Amino acid sequence: MTADPQVPVPPMKWDAWGDEAKAKPLSENIRALLRQALGVSTDDVRAPDKSEVVLRPSTLADEDLAALTDVVGAEHVSRADADRLPRAGGKSTLDLLRRKSRRPQAAPDAVVLPGSDDEVAAVLDVCGRRRIAVVPFGGGTSVVGGLDPVRAGFSAVISLDLRRFDRLESLDTTSGEAVLGAGLPGPRAEQLLAEHGFELGHYPQSFQYATIGGFAATRSSGQDSSGYGRFDDMVCGLRVVTPAGKLELGRAPASAAGPDLRELFLGSEGTLGIITAVRLRVHRLPEVKRYEAWRFDDFAAGAAALRAVAQHGTQPTVIRLSDEAETGVNLAMTDRIGGEQVTGGCLAVTVFEGTEQQVAMRHQLTSAVLRAAGGTSLGPEPAESWAHGRFDAPYLRDALLANGALCETLETATSWSNAPALKAAVTSALQSALAETGTQSLVMCHISHIYPTGCSLYFTVVAAQRGDTVEDVIEQWKRAKRAASDAIMANGGTITHHHAVGVDHRPWLPDEIGDVGVRILRAVKAELDPHGILNPGKLVP
Amino acid sequence: MTADPQVPVPPMKWDAWGDEAKAKPLSENIRALLRQALGVSTDDVRAPDKSEVVLRPSTLADEDLAALTDVVGAEHVSRADADRLPRAGGKSTLDLLRRKSRRPQAAPDAVVLPGSDDEVAAVLDVCGRRRIAVVPFGGGTSVVGGLDPVRAGFSAVISLDLRRFDRLESLDTTSGEAVLGAGLPGPRAEQLLAEHGFELGHYPQSFQYATIGGFAATRSSGQDSSGYGRFDDMVCGLRVVTPAGKLELGRAPASAAGPDLRELFLGSEGTLGIITAVRLRVHRLPEVKRYEAWRFDDFAAGAAALRAVAQHGTQPTVIRLSDEAETGVNLAMTDRIGGEQVTGGCLAVTVFEGTEQQVAMRHQLTSAVLRAAGGTSLGPEPAESWAHGRFDAPYLRDALLANGALCETLETATSWSNAPALKAAVTSALQSALAETGTQSLVMCHISHIYPTGCSLYFTVVAAQRGDTVEDVIEQWKRAKRAASDAIMANGGTITHHHAVGVDHRPWLPDEIGDVGVRILRAVKAELDPHGILNPGKLVP
Repeated sequence: MTADPQVPVPPMKWDAWGDEAKAKPLSENIRALLRQALGVSTDDVRAPDKSEVVLRPSTLADEDLAALTDVVGAEHVSRADADRLPRAGGKSTLDLLRRKSRRPQAAPDAVVLPGSDDEVAAVLDVCGRRRIAVVPFGGGTSVVGGLDPVRAGFSAVISLDLRRFDRLESLDTTSGEAVLGAGLPGPRAEQLLAEHGFELGHYPQSFQYATIGGFAATRSSGQDSSGYGRFDDMVCGLRVVTPAGKLELGRAPASAAGPDLRELFLGSEGTLGIITAVRLRVHRLPEVKRYEAWRFDDFAAGAAALRAVAQHGTQPTVIRLSDEAETGVNLAMTDRIGGEQVTGGCLAVTVFEGTEQQVAMRHQLTSAVLRAAGGTSLGPEPAESWAHGRFDAPYLRDALLANGALCETLETATSWSNAPALKAAVTSALQSALAETGTQSLVMCHISHIYPTGCSLYFTVVAAQRGDTVEDVIEQWKRAKRAASDAIMANGGTITHHHAVGVDHRPWLPDEIGDVGVRILRAVKAELDPHGILNPGKLVP
Repeated sequence: MTADPQVPVPPMKWDAWGDEAKAKPLSENIRALLRQALGVSTDDVRAPDKSEVVLRPSTLADEDLAALTDVVGAEHVSRADADRLPRAGGKSTLDLLRRKSRRPQAAPDAVVLPGSDDEVAAVLDVCGRRRIAVVPFGGGTSVVGGLDPVRAGFSAVISLDLRRFDRLESLDTTSGEAVLGAGLPGPRAEQLLAEHGFELGHYPQSFQYATIGGFAATRSSGQDSSGYGRFDDMVCGLRVVTPAGKLELGRAPASAAGPDLRELFLGSEGTLGIITAVRLRVHRLPEVKRYEAWRFDDFAAGAAALRAVAQHGTQPTVIRLSDEAETGVNLAMTDRIGGEQVTGGCLAVTVFEGTEQQVAMRHQLTSAVLRAAGGTSLGPEPAESWAHGRFDAPYLRDALLANGALCETLETATSWSNAPALKAAVTSALQSALAETGTQSLVMCHISHIYPTGCSLYFTVVAAQRGDTVEDVIEQWKRAKRAASDAIMANGGTITHHHAVGVDHRPWLPDEIGDVGVRILRAVKAELDPHGILNPGKLVP
């Protein structure tokens, strides 16, 4: 397989998040906190080295390999373990725990890198005829098992890596629309747009690795969603290759021409087709950025303030609120976690971007609403500190995992009126379930996406690992996650606000969309993917 | 059949738009204009009286009637012509011309008024077993043939009137969410919300008659869409009854739990299920309204100004721009049409609603952008005049039709960069096609819905009726409409921005969504409506 095309970020570690050089060893503060509060033994846990990992042997037959090679060329197919291992799964805590196992590990049987829509169609044709499952692969950042190499009765499973779809295909500067290849990682997409003075403005936690196609396939939502919208809001059009043929969706900025079929492929997680390009709404690079942090006495007061901002439409670019627990450990400022507390009560962060006039106006209106709702300004510094470390949290999670702690995040969304009850129910479910496994836990929460009618709730959980083996810890977390998911569904939340469904949330999807909803998904899948080769075991119940 | 439940507006005329008392006879100015410019003979055309209309006899068998009566009760089923005639179709120019025919007219074979979701389900069950087609009926305002009583090989076709779904089922004042019955007409819905200090803010041209369910089923867009969004933007949740079972969609303000199935039923036009209730985003009644009209030298300058407003996010509640032709006849101000010209160039109207501070800020920012783009303020008066007559245009159309003129509207949307070419192509297609029928035509256009990436284009066409019979005039308009639709598709527009597909736009849907898109719609329909009873001949090719 040829070397990567231009990749703007270092290759992802096989058994952890991101770039090895950016790893964040735990500070003494944090170690002490873990020991005292949660009973975590912070001795380094010995994880297997890459060279010690045993992958299950590839089951892709030679004649299948030949057929795929015919389509994409020998340099774009590989059965080598070195190529299979980095695509063995995503980056959830479960994924990373699995990587620490010394048992033989599941991995795709081959990696295939098509270079055009026609090649994607031909690969799907080969796989349909030869009964090979296909897992589309972008940045490898799924945290819901969306990349699990589920074989599901097929003879083999391939990873369909989209990295060769790496171009800014066109840019309409008048309309503010850009067609971006599905395989472009966030930073590279922004770099290509910035060369023309434009920005997409989609900055999820996974930004540095995740791709345009992955954002679309999972309904990603970025930290600037208040200003620039969720990723699905930004999508003007989609190019999709399915086993049944190709689709070009989205003829106009808005339409009444029947059901909006883009909305079937947004969030389809590779189960209905392969998204190869996305036409996106882009905007001029902001001239000015302004930061301001706020303190609220408690989460209820802060949430009411964010609600007022959403309902008044004062247009902050970023607005987020940490609850008392998150604020207490400075979780919003990765450089200061566990250090001296920046503020009591609840910390909120605001950022404003745009022209000078827009920023002035938006800042003024938003600040007036926050002040009227009981907020006290803490000045720009804590907000700048949040922005500085905004992509670093996953590194911290990995250090915790390596040091005997269990750490994971999960999220939901609901109406403003239901948010307090849902937050309490999920917190309590996590704490109870983890207590039953023999550990105290710290459950923290923030709101990072607001809408006129409701908000997201994002939970971070830290506890002590319990059990003798990695497999025990996996079971420990699964138990807690099940309790949290049940609590979400029983208390009116959505099973996921922006992490998607994958394998991990699939059991709850029938509760989310009902039996008839499930039948609709199955009917569409049967029509587009009659052999069922597309990402089996994910999303569709 | 029992009398109507509380209906806030007078019953709709059977053969024209709206309330008889509000009919707008043509002014001498307009008559002169039609004679001179278009060669219209303005002698009153003798149309049949209601008593002269012959409906095709009902084909609903007695045993079918009995089965439906078992479900909803005798007072909620009728085969009487007096009930069938008002539900014989919508209010497009084609519909109204057909009403003028002296030949036997198509009509549903019975009218059925279920009172609950369970009754809707039972009616669908009866119709599936007895092979009866079902046309859902709200306000009867379709302008695309969405209500045509297409029998499609079934033994009969019923009109399923949803007017008994007429309640504000719940209101969450914290989250700003209201559950409204599908059969509520716009004014009654706003009245129920206003009693609690809230507003939906959806004011399409059809507002005074069209219903909540119809807005959802057709992806309606109102005149305040810049401020409050299209109707589909406002939909938080849907309750839908299908032959395959019931659906409750929309658990959260935003979700990544797979495809957004709400977006399959929005715009489904009664072909996939019956929408019985809609959960909608609502807002506090505005405290202040401010009006201002603007003049631009030409349409290109005005369109660039509206684009700047959309891309700067300055949040006018209403913004619209008439082209030179529309401005020339004062079409935006129904009381002054054909009178002394209010302004040369192009007229734009802005309205701002909200709190005093919001209105001040939005007005200031928007005005700055419009002025920078070359606009000159004309003060509030022309904008107030637009607002005063905002729902009156259909009355004018009816008077034109009754006086030998042909008048109809059609619409599309596209990106900002493509708008000039699309506008020119549609205008030219209409003029050429009508010239071939032997009449000059006046083709006017406005932009009334703006988005960061593009806008709607709304065309009003006036010409002389040609031919000896109503059937000739119908063919005359069909020819022009075909030419316009072909031009829209050949020049990158959507076949409809907010009028929906129905019968009239159905031939162009395969161009809009592609063969694979059509297969998806058919697969979903086959799953939900295996007998194909739901609104046959509409939408799904």
